[in-house]
Amino acid sequence: MIAEEVRLDVQRSARTGFSEIVYCPGKSDEQLESIASTLKDTKDNVLFSRVSYPQHCIIASVLPDAVFHAKARLTGLRRQESPRYKGVMVVTAGSTDVPVAEEAAVTAEYMGCDVKRLYDVGVAGLHRLMGHVEDLQSAKAIVAVAGMEGALPTVLGGLVSCPVVAVPTSTGYGINMGGIAPLLTMLNSCAAGISVVNIDNGFGAAVVATRINDPR
Amino acid sequence: MIAEEVRLDVQRSARTGFSEIVYCPGKSDEQLESIASTLKDTKDNVLFSRVSYPQHCIIASVLPDAVFHAKARLTGLRRQESPRYKGVMVVTAGSTDVPVAEEAAVTAEYMGCDVKRLYDVGVAGLHRLMGHVEDLQSAKAIVAVAGMEGALPTVLGGLVSCPVVAVPTSTGYGINMGGIAPLLTMLNSCAAGISVVNIDNGFGAAVVATRINDPR
Amino acid sequence: MIAEEVRLDVQRSARTGFSEIVYCPGKSDEQLESIASTLKDTKDNVLFSRVSYPQHCIIASVLPDAVFHAKARLTGLRRQESPRYKGVMVVTAGSTDVPVAEEAAVTAEYMGCDVKRLYDVGVAGLHRLMGHVEDLQSAKAIVAVAGMEGALPTVLGGLVSCPVVAVPTSTGYGINMGGIAPLLTMLNSCAAGISVVNIDNGFGAAVVATRINDPR
Amino acid sequence: MIAEEVRLDVQRSARTGFSEIVYCPGKSDEQLESIASTLKDTKDNVLFSRVSYPQHCIIASVLPDAVFHAKARLTGLRRQESPRYKGVMVVTAGSTDVPVAEEAAVTAEYMGCDVKRLYDVGVAGLHRLMGHVEDLQSAKAIVAVAGMEGALPTVLGGLVSCPVVAVPTSTGYGINMGGIAPLLTMLNSCAAGISVVNIDNGFGAAVVATRINDPR
Amino acid sequence: MIAEEVRLDVQRSARTGFSEIVYCPGKSDEQLESIASTLKDTKDNVLFSRVSYPQHCIIASVLPDAVFHAKARLTGLRRQESPRYKGVMVVTAGSTDVPVAEEAAVTAEYMGCDVKRLYDVGVAGLHRLMGHVEDLQSAKAIVAVAGMEGALPTVLGGLVSCPVVAVPTSTGYGINMGGIAPLLTMLNSCAAGISVVNIDNGFGAAVVATRINDPR
Amino acid sequence: MIAEEVRLDVQRSARTGFSEIVYCPGKSDEQLESIASTLKDTKDNVLFSRVSYPQHCIIASVLPDAVFHAKARLTGLRRQESPRYKGVMVVTAGSTDVPVAEEAAVTAEYMGCDVKRLYDVGVAGLHRLMGHVEDLQSAKAIVAVAGMEGALPTVLGGLVSCPVVAVPTSTGYGINMGGIAPLLTMLNSCAAGISVVNIDNGFGAAVVATRINDPR
Amino acid sequence: MIAEEVRLDVQRSARTGFSEIVYCPGKSDEQLESIASTLKDTKDNVLFSRVSYPQHCIIASVLPDAVFHAKARLTGLRRQESPRYKGVMVVTAGSTDVPVAEEAAVTAEYMGCDVKRLYDVGVAGLHRLMGHVEDLQSAKAIVAVAGMEGALPTVLGGLVSCPVVAVPTSTGYGINMGGIAPLLTMLNSCAAGISVVNIDNGFGAAVVATRINDPR
Amino acid sequence: MIAEEVRLDVQRSARTGFSEIVYCPGKSDEQLESIASTLKDTKDNVLFSRVSYPQHCIIASVLPDAVFHAKARLTGLRRQESPRYKGVMVVTAGSTDVPVAEEAAVTAEYMGCDVKRLYDVGVAGLHRLMGHVEDLQSAKAIVAVAGMEGALPTVLGGLVSCPVVAVPTSTGYGINMGGIAPLLTMLNSCAAGISVVNIDNGFGAAVVATRINDPR
Repeated sequence: MIAEEVRLDVQRSARTGFSEIVYCPGKSDEQLESIASTLKDTKDNVLFSRVSYPQHCIIASVLPDAVFHAKARLTGLRRQESPRYKGVMVVTAGSTDVPVAEEAAVTAEYMGCDVKRLYDVGVAGLHRLMGHVEDLQSAKAIVAVAGMEGALPTVLGGLVSCPVVAVPTSTGYGINMGGIAPLLTMLNSCAAGISVVNIDNGFGAAVVATRINDPR
Repeated sequence: MIAEEVRLDVQRSARTGFSEIVYCPGKSDEQLESIASTLKDTKDNVLFSRVSYPQHCIIASVLPDAVFHAKARLTGLRRQESPRYKGVMVVTAGSTDVPVAEEAAVTAEYMGCDVKRLYDVGVAGLHRLMGHVEDLQSAKAIVAVAGMEGALPTVLGGLVSCPVVAVPTSTGYGINMGGIAPLLTMLNSCAAGISVVNIDNGFGAAVVATRINDPR
Repeated sequence: MIAEEVRLDVQRSARTGFSEIVYCPGKSDEQLESIASTLKDTKDNVLFSRVSYPQHCIIASVLPDAVFHAKARLTGLRRQESPRYKGVMVVTAGSTDVPVAEEAAVTAEYMGCDVKRLYDVGVAGLHRLMGHVEDLQSAKAIVAVAGMEGALPTVLGGLVSCPVVAVPTSTGYGINMGGIAPLLTMLNSCAAGISVVNIDNGFGAAVVATRINDPR
Repeated sequence: MIAEEVRLDVQRSARTGFSEIVYCPGKSDEQLESIASTLKDTKDNVLFSRVSYPQHCIIASVLPDAVFHAKARLTGLRRQESPRYKGVMVVTAGSTDVPVAEEAAVTAEYMGCDVKRLYDVGVAGLHRLMGHVEDLQSAKAIVAVAGMEGALPTVLGGLVSCPVVAVPTSTGYGINMGGIAPLLTMLNSCAAGISVVNIDNGFGAAVVATRINDPR
Repeated sequence: MIAEEVRLDVQRSARTGFSEIVYCPGKSDEQLESIASTLKDTKDNVLFSRVSYPQHCIIASVLPDAVFHAKARLTGLRRQESPRYKGVMVVTAGSTDVPVAEEAAVTAEYMGCDVKRLYDVGVAGLHRLMGHVEDLQSAKAIVAVAGMEGALPTVLGGLVSCPVVAVPTSTGYGINMGGIAPLLTMLNSCAAGISVVNIDNGFGAAVVATRINDPR
Repeated sequence: MIAEEVRLDVQRSARTGFSEIVYCPGKSDEQLESIASTLKDTKDNVLFSRVSYPQHCIIASVLPDAVFHAKARLTGLRRQESPRYKGVMVVTAGSTDVPVAEEAAVTAEYMGCDVKRLYDVGVAGLHRLMGHVEDLQSAKAIVAVAGMEGALPTVLGGLVSCPVVAVPTSTGYGINMGGIAPLLTMLNSCAAGISVVNIDNGFGAAVVATRINDPR
Repeated sequence: MIAEEVRLDVQRSARTGFSEIVYCPGKSDEQLESIASTLKDTKDNVLFSRVSYPQHCIIASVLPDAVFHAKARLTGLRRQESPRYKGVMVVTAGSTDVPVAEEAAVTAEYMGCDVKRLYDVGVAGLHRLMGHVEDLQSAKAIVAVAGMEGALPTVLGGLVSCPVVAVPTSTGYGINMGGIAPLLTMLNSCAAGISVVNIDNGFGAAVVATRINDPR
Repeated sequence: MIAEEVRLDVQRSARTGFSEIVYCPGKSDEQLESIASTLKDTKDNVLFSRVSYPQHCIIASVLPDAVFHAKARLTGLRRQESPRYKGVMVVTAGSTDVPVAEEAAVTAEYMGCDVKRLYDVGVAGLHRLMGHVEDLQSAKAIVAVAGMEGALPTVLGGLVSCPVVAVPTSTGYGINMGGIAPLLTMLNSCAAGISVVNIDNGFGAAVVATRINDPR
């Protein structure tokens, strides 16, 4: 019966260039187990996102070589050694944005990217960012992660010529409204070259950045 | 009868240090005329804010020495030469923010300040702002006016040690929502020393900046 | 004085790879004239966005070779023949989304792209889209423009392997709230590879798509 | 005293064609017990919705033949064998939407429908849905359950000629806002034949679908 | 070129049981003319919704037998005499809800229904509604149109056993927010058998009601 | 046909103690004429609210003794001399709140109250209010009308022992959001004895105040 | 020090006709103890609202004759036998609205009213309400408590001639948004004589109803 | 690795006049430890804001002279005896606003101010505030902290001539929406000289007040 509740999109790798990614919140233990079983013999890399540790354990009981990336809340299964494309950079405004950034970075790594990380360089202390302009300008796609007021992508957008994928985070309080404030900031940015994904969606940003970076 | 609809706060100058300011939208012609008449013999400076040109004409018919500041949408009556305190600076992110900035600057001038203007220095092109850091750091109060994503005050807040009064403007479109986006940005700023007034409220920011700057 | 209100970002071409783009709503006639004069001798291509016809006339009085793209609300100045990179595709869900799509397409053309257009292929009539899958799968960046419920990018995201830049439009009524509904749809898309720009921001999407497509 | 707090609508079966359904959240244990007692001798089928397991136990202590449907969060009392009308189909976009779908399906079954289930056929992987078009086109009423961006009903609406009752779910995160995003998507759908119920309201959708399907 | 902007869904009649309906706001004159031309030889009934009178004139210049229904803002082309199914009833709370109700009623008539109208029977004066209970209980589908607080469908839902398609209207002021208040009322109704369409979407409600009523 | 669109609630006077009141926005000229005709022989007082001057002329063509109250946007028909109950007081924070206050005051007068007016006594200049405390404390019901931040009812609520009916107005700009800000202020007031009506709903407040004041 | 954090409004009884009421959420144990001590010798009745049981225990340790009303979440201190005025009626739509209704009813009783209760008479089953019309029409003030869609006050407003104080409750789910939906319904009610208090504010409604009922 | 996640802004003291302040929510234990280590040898005062007690313990294990201010949720490190500037006053409307007020007061004290506290003087009982007018008028900057409807700053703004920094708190319920209601009240205040910070942002208000008060 559970098998009838989940339909893995097994053609996705061929069709969209990436393997299956399983979003775990709200999935029952039975569903997770069923999904893991289906993926036992896949030859693609697999990622489970927003995994709690108990959920990881269920997955790992079926797929023993699954690796838990605690900070990124990802469980990964590396079935093939992808070539390593350079060019993706993940940047955060604050240190509390790191979990979302790690979700982005680790996802991009599973998808075949070499990732540079640059954390805690928010624009309220500009010199922290300005010391890395050269690095930033050599990137092919930048994932910019920021909570609070979310101003980082605007300043970045004016410094680089590659696309900036902006990720608002739910870091903040009061009228931040769980990340709605930085989301709005990013969507209204007067800097060009910026596009936006959902709040805390490090994974989604990584897919966009990887597709941008893909030399195919 | 109209006289019973408007009660000017004639004790305000003594009590709060400033003369009467009349917010004009929604006021009937009869109300404006009645107010202007009441102010005929005041010895304080007077400002009418958000004045349309027809409204100015009604006021000027009663107070012939009233001056119309078109860009700032203010009608002013200078009845005394205030001493000129230095230290207030008005900064905008874009050129479409200028009317709100002018409302702030002209108001502060009527209240006795010498005002420095620095317009169109938005942070998507940082070098425009960075060329004026010294000027900014010598201010005692900065009014920072920005629409779109409203990131300017955050960057400013990290550069200066005086209070920054942030004014969101309704410049923008779509999910900007008439200035709500930059308002949220400013309220959530991770830079310190920033406080915020209502959207397009150049006048209110000027009063705060003037009170900050006041050596009393 | 007007000259002090506008500061063109003349270093932008070198720094970010693109020439100046001027957002026109809210700019006074004097500001537009001042900007046009400053751009008289630039060697880059220039675009004025969200131009009304009277604004175009002011610009054209200073820059006589400026071309008005009525449907796209753009005034363009082609100063150099850019190489033509293939790979950008602009798709709309409905025919009322065409003006925003044209803003995107014409912008991308000025920035050196060969643009394919595919209009009125909304997913409530899937066969209209499915007849073009091959074309879509050969693109390097797709700008997907949709109002109403904004479901197009989700279906597209499952069909292609390149990044999809989703543009919500203000087409709709009632609880559409001027494009907020499709904006939310796109930000919450369960398809991967999608990032989003502000409502009706065809221009912004074009810049992202062009930067993605850029072989540099 | 409790008896004065609850007034069961005992005429409802005659008036509206269905028996009493009791919404349980917020009800005190005393209220539930009092309601269960009143229903002891009813000859209609009865449903308690959004039941927690402890609440089920209170009900079952009074009505020992009550059955707990854990996934659907329903406690049911089958007092009569209704005739089985075919034609209701319950469809979900994802596997996390299953609990809401089960609430709909089990409710419809208690109300006398034969229900077909088709789960995890979201439109980001169209082929999952397209393999079932014939089944879908033979339905008389479809309950379409979807969270995230909620695009499923729009695609369905273009494929079938029966009414589609769309149920947004609270599956999602960030700007999904607990199901508000898919709710808006469904209300703004450009496909015809779609109407919408409250977020997670599988029960309500089942009643509508059953009334549509009713040959009376 | 215009022809490439509009793709009529000519297979829709076969697939979904209804002919093409053209939503007119935002369509350019050229687009409307192009659509009208394409429909010249169709044998199905056709409707243009939310038509302004000038738009009607453009359509009528191509399709001379097109009829303008001013109150309903519809232009219709009756190409076949559909059989007349009874059972659809359109009810309004107030007299200002009549235009939306007429959009629903006329649409349902073009789709082959005999429609009963019952207008201005809002529940703040219950006796107006209670005098028509018998009529209401004999309907197979009720379209309930209400602005202000939108309480009508809740009371109706308790009186009848057929589905109620609730249409919030933008009638109201202040915190009504253009129909959002009655929309929320209807989505939260504690009465069963109610589903909801977008604000002012009389057309959409009519399609749902017609599909419910359809004996196929 | 128009007659079938409007159903006057002729029993209302007996049932609720007041005569018919007709809300005019959105009503067609035919509807207004039809309503006016129906009211020709009523013996109760009648009010048409939110009347435009052209609408008044249509009404007056049928009911020649109808009086237009321009500031209050009311057309009234005084058919009986009600006894004059004292005790209702209408207070405004600013002079731009006067039209809403007049709608309240004139309505209460038609309903048989003697109304005291106290205008432009907002709490940013407390002395204006404090000079009238005795008057306020002798009232039986106070209608408190305020826009901007809407603080007046909170201060009033602490000064008097009668109910305060708070009316938010749409006076304001920016994040005032057309009166939503003062509406929220009033609903959250920490003073007791305050209840609230819709934005700009002077009429509704008057009915509440009159019912409070009614010695029956 | 705690004594400096709380300033009881000891003049309130004289000024506003009621004794002190203490809102307890967020108050520290020290603050509650300090307040209770101050009230030890008051001769007025006292109420503590939204009291948790542990908070009650702290209060009762200082004021041993304090009574805990669990369902109403009130702790009361009856220091004087008020005269009993008849005329306040408390009505609820559902049984889950009872705690808010009890907060209203018990508060009104402490303030000297004889209160009639009529619970679970929501308008989706009209006959439950219609059996009590005579009772309702004899009331001098009705507190109408409803969650979900909140339609009860609208129907009540059309049946009675006394003021209706509407209390939205947070009963509901999904787009109910914690009571915002019924709050909007009540503020937009097309029935006259209705005013509204904050969500779940049974206490506030009781104060208004008591002041209305007060023969002073 | 942790060291790469946090970049303390060590130049901030020189640049902005204040030492580092560390916002603690969402920071991992490792990050806090790393930050504390970096600050071991700083000669400036240091504050950790929104500190939980377990977080304080981690900090104190590295910086043993750190002091925990429980009510203000601050951990402070006093490394230098700043001169004591007079003139900052912290005022609250209620006693539940005290924690936010203490965050402001203690922060200002660490930054070198002598702070006067005036708590529980909300405007629903005006006499509590009016007894302190002289004190208020002698302040150079007032931090006004209020939840519920947030009317305090408006009344204050009319009484004093110094800037008022308004802090909305999340004290309240229902449509208070976690402090959004008082935030809107304060932003829309019709009193002049008021600027606003984020909900519960006592810390931010203190920085603004200190910068205002700073004689530099």
